[in-house]
Amino acid sequence: MAADDDRLDRLEQRIAALEDQIAIYQLLMTYGPSADSGSDDVVRAIHHPGAEYDSGLDVFRGGGQIGDMIASFPLHRDIMAGGSAHLATMPVVHVDGDRATALCHGQLLRFDREADAFRIWRATAVRLEFRRTGEGWKIYRRANRLLDGSDASHQHFRDGLADVGAVPAQTVPAEAVPAEAPAGPAGPAGSAGPAG
Amino acid sequence: MAADDDRLDRLEQRIAALEDQIAIYQLLMTYGPSADSGSDDVVRAIHHPGAEYDSGLDVFRGGGQIGDMIASFPLHRDIMAGGSAHLATMPVVHVDGDRATALCHGQLLRFDREADAFRIWRATAVRLEFRRTGEGWKIYRRANRLLDGSDASHQHFRDGLADVGAVPAQTVPAEAVPAEAPAGPAGPAGSAGPAG
Amino acid sequence: MAADDDRLDRLEQRIAALEDQIAIYQLLMTYGPSADSGSDDVVRAIHHPGAEYDSGLDVFRGGGQIGDMIASFPLHRDIMAGGSAHLATMPVVHVDGDRATALCHGQLLRFDREADAFRIWRATAVRLEFRRTGEGWKIYRRANRLLDGSDASHQHFRDGLADVGAVPAQTVPAEAVPAEAPAGPAGPAGSAGPAG
Repeated sequence: MAADDDRLDRLEQRIAALEDQIAIYQLLMTYGPSADSGSDDVVRAIHHPGAEYDSGLDVFRGGGQIGDMIASFPLHRDIMAGGSAHLATMPVVHVDGDRATALCHGQLLRFDREADAFRIWRATAVRLEFRRTGEGWKIYRRANRLLDGSDASHQHFRDGLADVGAVPAQTVPAEAVPAEAPAGPAGPAGSAGPAG
Repeated sequence: MAADDDRLDRLEQRIAALEDQIAIYQLLMTYGPSADSGSDDVVRAIHHPGAEYDSGLDVFRGGGQIGDMIASFPLHRDIMAGGSAHLATMPVVHVDGDRATALCHGQLLRFDREADAFRIWRATAVRLEFRRTGEGWKIYRRANRLLDGSDASHQHFRDGLADVGAVPAQTVPAEAVPAEAPAGPAGPAGSAGPAG
Repeated sequence: MAADDDRLDRLEQRIAALEDQIAIYQLLMTYGPSADSGSDDVVRAIHHPGAEYDSGLDVFRGGGQIGDMIASFPLHRDIMAGGSAHLATMPVVHVDGDRATALCHGQLLRFDREADAFRIWRATAVRLEFRRTGEGWKIYRRANRLLDGSDASHQHFRDGLADVGAVPAQTVPAEAVPAEAPAGPAGPAGSAGPAG
């Protein structure tokens, strides 16, 4: 029976990992429709009380203030009134116990009635952190950077790739290693890839 | 053995829930490539015979008529001939037995040869319903609303958030509760959130 | 115990199938942030050594050459320097043992500083193949076709729908069946649909 119990334990852990992944997908994708519809109650519910949202234009601290932004921040209300779509691509997610990181692209579309079209006002590199609470996973950190070609925007995505474990551990930039130095220890094989 | 059977039953249910979630992802994401390529056979196959598709411009009733729209509706054929991309964001999904609801953003991009670019002609709030049949999950209802800043468009997403259980049950708008009234019973803790 | 072992085996297989699906999601969604940030090391890590990437403009052969494209291909470096977003929609995925196919939409957005907006330079039909290796799933083939309304672009998505098993097996085009011929045998019920 012990062997079976072990097997069941392992299956349970794998199922729990899949459930975490899906829960974080759902959590992130709930934000856009909430922002577009002014649903500050939903936005409060999906954020951690200690959350921080750095939109790249402004920083909002605490789930309450992030909810207030949706409810009454003039720029957000203007964007909503004119017609908006807050889009996110499917994120790459990395769960580690009760914490998780993710990265994706964000877009903010604004309706242009005269052009009969939507303009992509902002396309951003998005880094996220999540925390598991007694009420499920919550958004803990979000930071967007405009993809304007700047080094900072590139670095933001680069840092996000490291957050989710996508940067191969064994990569050592050539210029960082003196020619005479011995090679550093390689990372454990297959430890890091997003497809591992 | 009974204890193990119970445990296996519970694991099986959790796996089935994950499979349902993935099946609905696949089903929804099959629509765009089918619409862009004029694959009316696929569109028929992914819709319920009793399906209804309200594009926000027209309403199509029955899986057969929705397939006919792809095959021969003049506006759709014009859009396809000019070059189109029917996009959907990853949906938020709520499964309840043999029924499911979802919401996401839709976009309809049209190629502009002179501009060497695509124009976002429509960006929409999308609400969906699915039904499980003997041949798997099928799209049962889809309703798109242009995100033009109208109250109706905001309400469409708001209703969709309620459909998927994202609106906190305990939310009572201040103006709806007389100052002297006792507080209503709170919803069950953690019952509703998308991250629950 | 044998009955329980069988049941555990079946559950394990279903979990493994879900894990494959998620691994392929993660793999594909890692590409865009890597391309936008010039992370050629990540791009090399997520591609199979024998990979081929047909962007619709150029063909790159081998994981090494695809990494080189990110690191030094003039067009890619220009796009990055000006501000880019390489977007993909959530893919439809079909796993078959150690191979998998997928299809999705791709977009390449470029920043236009004067317009304070992003232009969708390319929106494409994307077909993909994956291979399972000792280091997890890798991208093996990717082919993008501009959604310019051409028959070839429509056929690309149509072929992708067939790749992932979304085209109903029992579909027989009317013109292919002589009026006096008996109807062909129907495909096995529920064999093909993406929601099966």
